[in-house]
Amino acid sequence: MSKLLTPDHASTATPQLNRRQLITAAVTLAGGLALARHAPAANAAENVAGRLQALGIQLPEPPAPVANYVAYLVQDNFAYIAGQIPFANGELLFPGSVPNEVSVDAARIAARQCGINILAALSGACEGNLDRVRQCMRLDGFVASADGFTQQPQVINAASDLMVEVFGDAGRHTRTAVGVNELPLNACVEISAVFVID
Amino acid sequence: MSKLLTPDHASTATPQLNRRQLITAAVTLAGGLALARHAPAANAAENVAGRLQALGIQLPEPPAPVANYVAYLVQDNFAYIAGQIPFANGELLFPGSVPNEVSVDAARIAARQCGINILAALSGACEGNLDRVRQCMRLDGFVASADGFTQQPQVINAASDLMVEVFGDAGRHTRTAVGVNELPLNACVEISAVFVID
Amino acid sequence: MSKLLTPDHASTATPQLNRRQLITAAVTLAGGLALARHAPAANAAENVAGRLQALGIQLPEPPAPVANYVAYLVQDNFAYIAGQIPFANGELLFPGSVPNEVSVDAARIAARQCGINILAALSGACEGNLDRVRQCMRLDGFVASADGFTQQPQVINAASDLMVEVFGDAGRHTRTAVGVNELPLNACVEISAVFVID
Repeated sequence: MSKLLTPDHASTATPQLNRRQLITAAVTLAGGLALARHAPAANAAENVAGRLQALGIQLPEPPAPVANYVAYLVQDNFAYIAGQIPFANGELLFPGSVPNEVSVDAARIAARQCGINILAALSGACEGNLDRVRQCMRLDGFVASADGFTQQPQVINAASDLMVEVFGDAGRHTRTAVGVNELPLNACVEISAVFVID
Repeated sequence: MSKLLTPDHASTATPQLNRRQLITAAVTLAGGLALARHAPAANAAENVAGRLQALGIQLPEPPAPVANYVAYLVQDNFAYIAGQIPFANGELLFPGSVPNEVSVDAARIAARQCGINILAALSGACEGNLDRVRQCMRLDGFVASADGFTQQPQVINAASDLMVEVFGDAGRHTRTAVGVNELPLNACVEISAVFVID
Repeated sequence: MSKLLTPDHASTATPQLNRRQLITAAVTLAGGLALARHAPAANAAENVAGRLQALGIQLPEPPAPVANYVAYLVQDNFAYIAGQIPFANGELLFPGSVPNEVSVDAARIAARQCGINILAALSGACEGNLDRVRQCMRLDGFVASADGFTQQPQVINAASDLMVEVFGDAGRHTRTAVGVNELPLNACVEISAVFVID
């Protein structure tokens, strides 16, 4: 993914990329690189907070309810997480469709950010203790796709990988990945989730 | 939404609108206005049937099974509701994609009708007693979207709002809202749901 | 569906159809015809393995985990099945969008193959004993749709029908069927599922 941060790439594939987005992307990428040093095995003895720290991920506050829907709900052992789009620090990362307006690499960063936002909501569902997570059961990923783009799995993999980085084997989930022509606010990716928690 | 019923608006944004649809839309809208008089707080002391009456909503019969799928199934405390499209009195409201063929306001009426049809199916799941509903856990909303339309949340909000009108806080749910290029029978919106019931 | 195998039809509607795909399609179709002889009632006394045999369906091995996601997970009595695309013998059946690149009949064969792959994953969830299945709770079907195609239900019906052929009334499920502009690897259909098992 290092190609993402070369100016040429950023200026052609994602011309709408501004300085703040570049910084956010760099931070997100740094997390990925930190991961590369620690990967592949998540240490079962470590707790989730420690893993997040090692990954350089600082979770945002659990999202507040918007209008009449909420970011998470718990029933029995199931935590349902609402569809998340790649907001970071109040800004939507990489709006547009893949791959014409947003490169696959940029969309992967966006998908990882969706994953981070899912973890933030999940943290709310767990009252702040992510060690209560037993399993990531399902990710449903939607990629804003230009006609002819069929690599949705490569985009959603970035969120799938994050779950395993954070939860180890408990992060391995069932999932769907599909393309759609449009997403809310022109997001390039939206991902919802179901987890099992204690 | 009052703009919807002005002839000019109806004849341009939704030229396929016929008399029956106009009547249905007016009834649905009247429900919304009745709501406006009673909103925002659902009286916890009221039962769901009373709230529906106050909202001017008469639920249709729970949908009969079509082909080899059914409108609802219950397992443990979860009631799964099949994807509903905006049929009202046997007619599909506002077919087409948003916003070129169907205005956002019209699509919102359609989304509310999907919500009414979800309630009808849910009523079947509850053997007619909607007071057994403990929580609306999830709405998954799909909006038939022209390229460039990114206000799917505004459309699906109409169904989200209905759940809170009917169930109060128990109606606040997790949800996804995405755009798609085509829906069955040229529907402008399709919504599925999961509820928790006693 | 017999029209599917006439050379003219195959060569026009699905010009990318090769010999191996034709054979696979013929085998799948033969299953459907075998079914037609046994349909409509699934004999409750028969076990699922017997029904599959009567249908001429030999399940593939449960799919191996791909990257960081898995084909199935079980929690409480719920078995979640990942989105399946119409792979048969390692080859993707009928890639393209419906109906221009892939006919509705071909897409129905593909949807049935998705169903077979769902059963293979479900078999893994049941440790090989599909008699543990109590209910097919949900199918979520996505059809790669050319603009203007609105017969997604007819495509997904082929998977819905398979569930009832195999499980009888326990195969009747809630479902969604929507169109999307693109699917992974240019698949024409993707279907995920939730089952209840003992």
